[in-house]
Amino acid sequence: MTKNSVTVLGLGLMGQALAGALVRAGHATTVWNRSPAKADALVAQGATRAGSVRDAVTASPLVIVCVTGADAVREILDPVAGELGDRVLVNLSSGTSREARETAARHPGRYLDGAIMAAPPAIGTPEAAIVYSGARAAFDEHEQILRDLGTATFLGDDPALSALHETAVLGLMYGILNGFLHSAALLGAAGVPADSFLPFARAGIDTVAGWLPGYARQIDEGTYPALDATLGTHLAAIEHVVHESEDAGVDPALPALVRAAARRAVSAGHGGDSYASVIEQFRDKESA
Amino acid sequence: MTKNSVTVLGLGLMGQALAGALVRAGHATTVWNRSPAKADALVAQGATRAGSVRDAVTASPLVIVCVTGADAVREILDPVAGELGDRVLVNLSSGTSREARETAARHPGRYLDGAIMAAPPAIGTPEAAIVYSGARAAFDEHEQILRDLGTATFLGDDPALSALHETAVLGLMYGILNGFLHSAALLGAAGVPADSFLPFARAGIDTVAGWLPGYARQIDEGTYPALDATLGTHLAAIEHVVHESEDAGVDPALPALVRAAARRAVSAGHGGDSYASVIEQFRDKESA
Repeated sequence: MTKNSVTVLGLGLMGQALAGALVRAGHATTVWNRSPAKADALVAQGATRAGSVRDAVTASPLVIVCVTGADAVREILDPVAGELGDRVLVNLSSGTSREARETAARHPGRYLDGAIMAAPPAIGTPEAAIVYSGARAAFDEHEQILRDLGTATFLGDDPALSALHETAVLGLMYGILNGFLHSAALLGAAGVPADSFLPFARAGIDTVAGWLPGYARQIDEGTYPALDATLGTHLAAIEHVVHESEDAGVDPALPALVRAAARRAVSAGHGGDSYASVIEQFRDKESA
Repeated sequence: MTKNSVTVLGLGLMGQALAGALVRAGHATTVWNRSPAKADALVAQGATRAGSVRDAVTASPLVIVCVTGADAVREILDPVAGELGDRVLVNLSSGTSREARETAARHPGRYLDGAIMAAPPAIGTPEAAIVYSGARAAFDEHEQILRDLGTATFLGDDPALSALHETAVLGLMYGILNGFLHSAALLGAAGVPADSFLPFARAGIDTVAGWLPGYARQIDEGTYPALDATLGTHLAAIEHVVHESEDAGVDPALPALVRAAARRAVSAGHGGDSYASVIEQFRDKESA
């Protein structure tokens, strides 16, 4: 067992990409998958196939698991909890922040929960952003190996942070996608192709992206002086989006939801503030 | 009356910026505002102050109006409809697509409805995108002058197109902003500052922006083979956002709305298609 031994459990598309990057980086890589044939290509590249989870886990001080969901993680690892012992477990399976905390509790001090914000082909390149949270010492110990998987960022001691960051990025992405599809439907109702909307969409995205740093600063400071425009002005523009949608026969639910939040913020006294003040409408009212 | 005479009615912040750019570009610029003092700075720069709307309108073959709302446009221009006659009217006031069609009907063949997608300081630079729709001949006639206001794009004969494009960009922008604020609230509930979310947000925005051209092509073709992932996979990710929001005590209304649209699309048979297929859920069901 050398210092740079690493084990990968689970060889789906992502697991294969992870193991492949580790082999290419020169690490002694042990791989295991429920159906062993998934390891064939990796073995041809130099990986070692383990006959059992037990053999796989005991082969390396660092064990990376990448399967589908927290139930699969437990099913694979619970029987070998003794062998796992002091080894570092890095969980790159998809999962919730609650599951991350539960898994961390079973591996105190030796657990890292990770979230991969990249597709399999990017793994092993700096374009693959992978965030980790949990045991700082475990991250420091194996940082060099983790960096061979992509750009590695340690978020903090709370193992939930990786899943939360992944969810936050997803929430933003679906906000953009739904805004785009809604607008494409609105223009489509007037016979405008979505393709010709693209340059305008791009400009709108760039404009908003330019606002976000200022909004973030206000959110962190908890004060919201008007920046680009007042919330009252924004609300008038949002009304516009609702009415145009209704006139065009396009489902106004999305802009109506946006309007409802902005109206509540105006009612709460933020009409002259920046749009960032709407964040208070998303927060738990009881904890505010 | 020279070929490059132009009149600007309405000298709010935007009207002043428009008139200022025209003066700087060397056009004989006549200006009018209900409260005449708003013209002082422009007159000092070389503009001519008109004593009445009538004088302002008759001074130039091109009349630009920039006031607040369609009611104000009618109030100012209805009394001088006779003088307007064959002159080209460019309406850069905010307004709905319905109002654009109504105003166009009162100035057949000589009306351009415009939408300014820029803030006043950008006017007169290529960064100021201004879209126009309505009478093509009127646009061609005065294109050179309009280009001195910013990057001018003619969208088509339907005068509603400018307002619709503006609304579409706004709808997208509020989708992004609400996605960002929701995600910032989610991370904030775990003690993560919004500022540290920024690089992840930026990466997510870039990822989605990269998907949009493919989505637009599918929307225009009406076929939705899976691209980045299937809608079914996206739906699982959206469920995640809803549940993490609920767990964190953050209002799940936005991701729940996104989920509802994705679920309807899956029920309609698009589970194996791309996310772009969700657009059909926004369209008028009756016209589908």
